[in-house]
Amino acid sequence: MPRPSGRRNDELRPLSITRHYTKHAEGSVLISLGDTRVVCTASVEEKVPPFLRNKKRGWVTAEYGMLPRATGERNNREAARGGQGGRTREIQRLIGRSMRAALDPAVLGERSIVLDCDVIQADGGTRTAAISGAYVALMDAVEWLLGQALIAENPVHSGLAAVSVGVFEGQVITDLDYAEDNRAATDMNVVMNDRGDLIEIQGTAEAAPFNRSALNRMLDHAQAGIEQILRAQQQALGGGAAA
Amino acid sequence: MPRPSGRRNDELRPLSITRHYTKHAEGSVLISLGDTRVVCTASVEEKVPPFLRNKKRGWVTAEYGMLPRATGERNNREAARGGQGGRTREIQRLIGRSMRAALDPAVLGERSIVLDCDVIQADGGTRTAAISGAYVALMDAVEWLLGQALIAENPVHSGLAAVSVGVFEGQVITDLDYAEDNRAATDMNVVMNDRGDLIEIQGTAEAAPFNRSALNRMLDHAQAGIEQILRAQQQALGGGAAA
Amino acid sequence: MPRPSGRRNDELRPLSITRHYTKHAEGSVLISLGDTRVVCTASVEEKVPPFLRNKKRGWVTAEYGMLPRATGERNNREAARGGQGGRTREIQRLIGRSMRAALDPAVLGERSIVLDCDVIQADGGTRTAAISGAYVALMDAVEWLLGQALIAENPVHSGLAAVSVGVFEGQVITDLDYAEDNRAATDMNVVMNDRGDLIEIQGTAEAAPFNRSALNRMLDHAQAGIEQILRAQQQALGGGAAA
Amino acid sequence: MPRPSGRRNDELRPLSITRHYTKHAEGSVLISLGDTRVVCTASVEEKVPPFLRNKKRGWVTAEYGMLPRATGERNNREAARGGQGGRTREIQRLIGRSMRAALDPAVLGERSIVLDCDVIQADGGTRTAAISGAYVALMDAVEWLLGQALIAENPVHSGLAAVSVGVFEGQVITDLDYAEDNRAATDMNVVMNDRGDLIEIQGTAEAAPFNRSALNRMLDHAQAGIEQILRAQQQALGGGAAA
Amino acid sequence: MPRPSGRRNDELRPLSITRHYTKHAEGSVLISLGDTRVVCTASVEEKVPPFLRNKKRGWVTAEYGMLPRATGERNNREAARGGQGGRTREIQRLIGRSMRAALDPAVLGERSIVLDCDVIQADGGTRTAAISGAYVALMDAVEWLLGQALIAENPVHSGLAAVSVGVFEGQVITDLDYAEDNRAATDMNVVMNDRGDLIEIQGTAEAAPFNRSALNRMLDHAQAGIEQILRAQQQALGGGAAA
Amino acid sequence: MPRPSGRRNDELRPLSITRHYTKHAEGSVLISLGDTRVVCTASVEEKVPPFLRNKKRGWVTAEYGMLPRATGERNNREAARGGQGGRTREIQRLIGRSMRAALDPAVLGERSIVLDCDVIQADGGTRTAAISGAYVALMDAVEWLLGQALIAENPVHSGLAAVSVGVFEGQVITDLDYAEDNRAATDMNVVMNDRGDLIEIQGTAEAAPFNRSALNRMLDHAQAGIEQILRAQQQALGGGAAA
Repeated sequence: MPRPSGRRNDELRPLSITRHYTKHAEGSVLISLGDTRVVCTASVEEKVPPFLRNKKRGWVTAEYGMLPRATGERNNREAARGGQGGRTREIQRLIGRSMRAALDPAVLGERSIVLDCDVIQADGGTRTAAISGAYVALMDAVEWLLGQALIAENPVHSGLAAVSVGVFEGQVITDLDYAEDNRAATDMNVVMNDRGDLIEIQGTAEAAPFNRSALNRMLDHAQAGIEQILRAQQQALGGGAAA
Repeated sequence: MPRPSGRRNDELRPLSITRHYTKHAEGSVLISLGDTRVVCTASVEEKVPPFLRNKKRGWVTAEYGMLPRATGERNNREAARGGQGGRTREIQRLIGRSMRAALDPAVLGERSIVLDCDVIQADGGTRTAAISGAYVALMDAVEWLLGQALIAENPVHSGLAAVSVGVFEGQVITDLDYAEDNRAATDMNVVMNDRGDLIEIQGTAEAAPFNRSALNRMLDHAQAGIEQILRAQQQALGGGAAA
Repeated sequence: MPRPSGRRNDELRPLSITRHYTKHAEGSVLISLGDTRVVCTASVEEKVPPFLRNKKRGWVTAEYGMLPRATGERNNREAARGGQGGRTREIQRLIGRSMRAALDPAVLGERSIVLDCDVIQADGGTRTAAISGAYVALMDAVEWLLGQALIAENPVHSGLAAVSVGVFEGQVITDLDYAEDNRAATDMNVVMNDRGDLIEIQGTAEAAPFNRSALNRMLDHAQAGIEQILRAQQQALGGGAAA
Repeated sequence: MPRPSGRRNDELRPLSITRHYTKHAEGSVLISLGDTRVVCTASVEEKVPPFLRNKKRGWVTAEYGMLPRATGERNNREAARGGQGGRTREIQRLIGRSMRAALDPAVLGERSIVLDCDVIQADGGTRTAAISGAYVALMDAVEWLLGQALIAENPVHSGLAAVSVGVFEGQVITDLDYAEDNRAATDMNVVMNDRGDLIEIQGTAEAAPFNRSALNRMLDHAQAGIEQILRAQQQALGGGAAA
Repeated sequence: MPRPSGRRNDELRPLSITRHYTKHAEGSVLISLGDTRVVCTASVEEKVPPFLRNKKRGWVTAEYGMLPRATGERNNREAARGGQGGRTREIQRLIGRSMRAALDPAVLGERSIVLDCDVIQADGGTRTAAISGAYVALMDAVEWLLGQALIAENPVHSGLAAVSVGVFEGQVITDLDYAEDNRAATDMNVVMNDRGDLIEIQGTAEAAPFNRSALNRMLDHAQAGIEQILRAQQQALGGGAAA
Repeated sequence: MPRPSGRRNDELRPLSITRHYTKHAEGSVLISLGDTRVVCTASVEEKVPPFLRNKKRGWVTAEYGMLPRATGERNNREAARGGQGGRTREIQRLIGRSMRAALDPAVLGERSIVLDCDVIQADGGTRTAAISGAYVALMDAVEWLLGQALIAENPVHSGLAAVSVGVFEGQVITDLDYAEDNRAATDMNVVMNDRGDLIEIQGTAEAAPFNRSALNRMLDHAQAGIEQILRAQQQALGGGAAA
């Protein structure tokens, strides 16, 4: 049963990672995964939220947005509607938690890094693309901090990438595009580090429950896809990141 | 290494499910899991959201709230702050998706069931307790609809329950209370149906990544815990639900 | 002309006051007045609003809420609607003013007590039940402050309770339930201290104006009802409260 | 003990009522009570709120506002703060209820009259001045409706006015200005119709509880003050209003 | 082609400026331009916004509002709608910028002057009337500051007034009223100082583009109108303002 | 006195216009003017706002946004702050008015075109770049409508472009970048059609008033700059746009 995209079941969409995409941010990355395109910027701020003040620990957080016409039908602009919706908040919380899992806040010191992930064009998998791209922007911001001698040591201790997997027409597939995602029985987002350990797993039975065996096959797919993305991140970063 | 609660690693907290807890709602349940107490009401409304109008399908959705002093320190009231926070929205989306996975919307017909899950007292595991309790309230609302002859057939096709599992001091444990949750390396919420299939799995590496082996042990714990909760739900429902 | 509830004109509904209803709050009370059930918690906070800073005086305030299905038809959740409505704000202002009338803020010292009154089930008279219940929660919070040696003297100088009265089918009645309230010509909420003095009186001609004579009869009823509630509060408190 | 204003205890401040104050509204009144000045407009709208549709009954409602510098210190503009505060909502609900008590909605027919009461300058008693002024604007709007032959009969069946009374330095006084209100032990707002019946009574023990005797003396004062205001309203209206 | 108002093309509506219109504000002006009436108050506040703290410079800002029935049809109250609309924000930004152009913030010192411009009755040209009136209120607040010896020197270095001009039925006209504004091809608001220099120019092709020649004729009209308004302001101020 | 950018006083920054920048929108353009980059999409919607229903006329509107780190310092995300700020609303109103001036709404028919202008990177002149880019997106959406046979005739009757001009160090300059804009005495945005007529002119004396002569020189600069941009738009559109 071929996928709508014609890809092999375990085949990622073409992936490209462009660093220094915009000029102001300490880290700025455009990640394209097929037709999904996300701008990820990392902004260093010399302050922390109130609950962390005077604790000698840093903070990493994320915000997520979508241009109104990133999608097939125009979505009302969240700023115009008066606030971020539930899906947006859920996604940005996921991105923030993932980034924090890759980094030692004590080494970062009492400052913040804000990752802004804005979807320019959506074709499925925006949240996992955002995580994979935000990680590269985070690395660039860390490099900037090291270059400015604001920190002496790299606080990022792990590689990190994410991918979506799912069950589509009875097959486990990797990196669902919108057409596939829309008809998938199950959809799962997986975040892993570069040691193959899990950081986040969020699986949802959209149309049909899934058993442990399907879960295991999805995780195998996820791990293989994430390994490819980790390599692409390292290639984009010049091979020298995160030890 | 004993748990702070003194429970065995796979031991649920005492669970009680009280039906008909309040008088107005078509379904009304108080679920207590240890010191976590959630009021779950199911309200039948003879309308559907705009995107479902004239499609002869029903809608099930959920809202979640917490009394300001359900917790150790008072949280500002969300209504007074001007809106629901990200955590609240994430949880209510999870509850709603889970409920929809247990029910055939075409059999429900063009009407809505709203599950309100309000935490009276919190001690960890409020979202999974809310799911397990909301399911019973949903069943009572369905019974009411059948009794009123508004529907001819039971739209609920599966049992459904949820539990939290996690890794604490290197051990996989079931049903974390607040003290355990606060210090757990990993926290995972699992929703399953009564055939042992997964509806949702949300695992987060709070303090340390987890490998596939830990994931599998957590899922074993989850499945065992959920089976107990499913039995408690059936007992509360008088043994004759769903199925 | 019998009341829908079958009660005598001056008869309160069955009243019960349960202290220590939830475990986290410094004061926590469930008050039931017939089918009206309100959870009242008192939270001690070691801070005051900006306008009271460095004035060596404390602050007592209240918030009021209702579970969405506390009523016959589901009300939209205020947190989801984006703010508290006019009725909610009016009620919580009334509760806060009443509590402040029972207490010396200088003796309380520079800290706050927040009374949260959340209606679990509504059947008329929620605001007066909230006041009567919140007073007991306030007393428990004060006892906790004394026990913690945070204050040396009891700042509460008066007993305090509230009841609703009204004119129904030409008769003055006490403690209107929803069915009575809905058809009453006049509705009046009265808050009194334990010396029989008035703290608040709010009377509204819902359907028909009322004259001074009706007002006086309503006040007689109110005073008799409040005396019973004051006794029930003292009994719940073990007989040793407030001087 | 003379009042700060030097008035007799039962003396109203100078009262003036200017009709046709602005040109667009169907009714438009400037009421001045001493230094308190409120613009009250009545707007006729040929629609009713959803809950009244197709019920052949009209609706009367009110909104209240204050220019930011109507007071001694500037208050932040409610529109800029993002919503109306609790005090504002409480007041506009009171004005609306009072107006509805003077009018038969079936005679008004399926249309609305919106009373906007905006305080240009505040010196105590703004809510009662707003009620007394809004009544005259309402009468002008009704006259306009009669003149347009949109209604055949006057739906207003009563006169209506309001005044504040209170206890100040142990004396019962009428029509408190800001300096008096600020130091009063008790503050009470009373709305009465032109038959001397009560429409609303809202008494608050600001600094000291009040007994039944004080309440009665305050009501005597209120009745005398309201009678004067009713006469001033009739004089402004040309002597021919509301039978 | 005569104007609907019957005025000559370059004729202003009757202009009156009433100082000390309300009693609390440091400056308080009612400006009437034909049927357009705006209350402009200037409030001195001994604080500055965060971005100016400790910079030894003052701040002047403005807010704009309209009573709901200032217009032919009632507009919903912005405070009730939950925020200020785009038009309001645009206007108040314009007023604030204009005021700041007339004053040296270093001479004002670290304090703020807030200009509140509230339209009591609208008949076109409210924003330019607001600017011309706010300037007089600003002058009165400055006089108050000098009188209180809070400042030693007048920080206002220029006169300032505004007028609207436009193209109507092919003619350039000054000071459009609502009937003219509604049918104008072009509408332009001009703010000038008392040396004839431009502070703001905002021209919009409402119905038809305009060429440079029309622009020049509009500016000639604006200059002539502004000179008249500047004289009226000086007359109101007693001839001794701003040198 | 050379400009910080080293450009001649009348020199535009390098301009590029990329059509079909994203795949979903009916018109999608990336406009780059130096380091200012704006994504402009045009979305066709088969509906109109309520005030235009059943009037056989279309509607064109615009929204404007900025990625949080489009600027040198991160701006808080408007969606997270709970609404669009005054500057945003002012800009999107300007863009919408400008677009409406280029098009006959009766020819468009009862449908809407929404222009979303999102700034990816800001370096001054974002609002004028947005207008120039949105015009090309509008043309592409019109071409799509013609291609779909939804309209029979091109409703766009004029070319349209915008540029900023200003006074910097005493010189009139064209197309200010951020460094120039920040230190300019005067800043003016000009929108013109392809016949050299003015659509909008908004000039602000940021630091110093400007006289008629400076205004005229700024307009000369604007006209020359706009002519270049109009040519670039036509080139991007293949030379065949707008009659």
